[in-house]
Amino acid sequence: MLDCSEGAQKQLRRMRLPMMKIDHIFISHLHGDHYLGLAGLLFSYHLIGRTKPLNIFAPEGLQEIIELQFRVSDHKPAYPLHFHIVREGGQQVYEDKNITVETIAMEHRIPTYGYLFREKQALRNIRKDAIEHYNIPIEHISKIKSGKDLVRDNGEIIPNHKLTKDPPAPRSYAFCSDTGYTEQYLGQIKNVDLLYHEATFLHDKVDIARQKTHCTGIDAATIAKKACAGQLLIGHYSARYDDMKLFEKEAKRVFPDTILAQEGLCVEIGNKENRE
Amino acid sequence: MLDCSEGAQKQLRRMRLPMMKIDHIFISHLHGDHYLGLAGLLFSYHLIGRTKPLNIFAPEGLQEIIELQFRVSDHKPAYPLHFHIVREGGQQVYEDKNITVETIAMEHRIPTYGYLFREKQALRNIRKDAIEHYNIPIEHISKIKSGKDLVRDNGEIIPNHKLTKDPPAPRSYAFCSDTGYTEQYLGQIKNVDLLYHEATFLHDKVDIARQKTHCTGIDAATIAKKACAGQLLIGHYSARYDDMKLFEKEAKRVFPDTILAQEGLCVEIGNKENRE
Repeated sequence: MLDCSEGAQKQLRRMRLPMMKIDHIFISHLHGDHYLGLAGLLFSYHLIGRTKPLNIFAPEGLQEIIELQFRVSDHKPAYPLHFHIVREGGQQVYEDKNITVETIAMEHRIPTYGYLFREKQALRNIRKDAIEHYNIPIEHISKIKSGKDLVRDNGEIIPNHKLTKDPPAPRSYAFCSDTGYTEQYLGQIKNVDLLYHEATFLHDKVDIARQKTHCTGIDAATIAKKACAGQLLIGHYSARYDDMKLFEKEAKRVFPDTILAQEGLCVEIGNKENRE
Repeated sequence: MLDCSEGAQKQLRRMRLPMMKIDHIFISHLHGDHYLGLAGLLFSYHLIGRTKPLNIFAPEGLQEIIELQFRVSDHKPAYPLHFHIVREGGQQVYEDKNITVETIAMEHRIPTYGYLFREKQALRNIRKDAIEHYNIPIEHISKIKSGKDLVRDNGEIIPNHKLTKDPPAPRSYAFCSDTGYTEQYLGQIKNVDLLYHEATFLHDKVDIARQKTHCTGIDAATIAKKACAGQLLIGHYSARYDDMKLFEKEAKRVFPDTILAQEGLCVEIGNKENRE
């Protein structure tokens, strides 16, 4: 889960997303609209008897807030609650067999971090016809998947490319919220498949955006373009706007493959190569 | 405002209640379902430029939480934010020309307080026909309203009862949440016009209620009956229940004038005398 604003629990229920599947929560920064739903979620986990660990990644201060809230309520979470304090960008904070997550340093009034999710390169796909045709012994399969040639006991060599297909290219997702316009993380998010980037103001309010360390639709699209992103998802529109289509319109002038974030939207992350 | 749970801001907007009219917030205790909407509301007041003071009445700990949340967000509220720490029941924490508010000590796992709102006795109502009939000089009006007789310069005395009618009896409202069954505040809420009392469980779960320091529908109704309340409003039903009518049914067996609290319900507080 990325950020957790007030009412997140209710929203999870409305979207029929099973809250017990959430084991890792990544908080960008400690402005209220990005974390005020967390305490309620954590209390609910306690009340419904969660036992499996929960990991929270966040800048300094959140752990103190949550621990204080548990303390005054005279509860201790019934499940292991692990805080991972984020102090810099470009830091790998999570890894499992499928993905890695690293922090991205945002430019904001208080310490703020985006998160970059990268799939790991999958093993090569073995061709079903090759298994039969070359009569591949089962004990060789995992070696072949990892790219090795098939070497038979009699010394015969079947090259890997005859046995396997390329696996799908690993996909990546960058979540960049909130930030003023900066190119400091362009290198890090280069070629990302899906870039979520905040766009708080329309570009006619670029001065206010600069002053409040937020971005415009044009800013977000410029970052997407310079980073050669596959797709751009924008959001975090200021409450002063009613017509979000204006954000889409201005961003698309710079980066055509732009999507407007809205409540309940699901976006499938396709890897760039397959999409092109 | 009495308690402020997660999503309170959204609910205020939905009910078209002007959030800027709120100047006093009374928090019963620091379990999440009673205060987690407060930080968002306070941040919003800051962001929309509130300047008039806000007073918060709550047990110890809330001030620390809110101040920490402002500190980590690098904001200072743009308006005077006054915390009044409640440490005991029966304490008058607020008074203006119309009402007084005193705390009621609840029985719960952590320090918890109800609040008792009492209208002050209004001045006597002057009879319009008497103004004309006795030709009452304007400078005597306020004395007569406060109960004095009219004494003319020639020494003639017109007794007050000929000039005025009784004002409406002052009304009162007691908010009792959360609490186990206790009669410790019966004396304090005696004859209250409207009693809100928690009823978390149905009475077949009275053992669980006792263990968790909550009340049943029967408990709430018993308190209302013993306190000679005018009306009883019950709420805080456990999430395990779907059919709230069962609460109404069991409470009405003991105290017929029972109302079920539900989202958006408005209850007019009529004073007991007029209702009877």
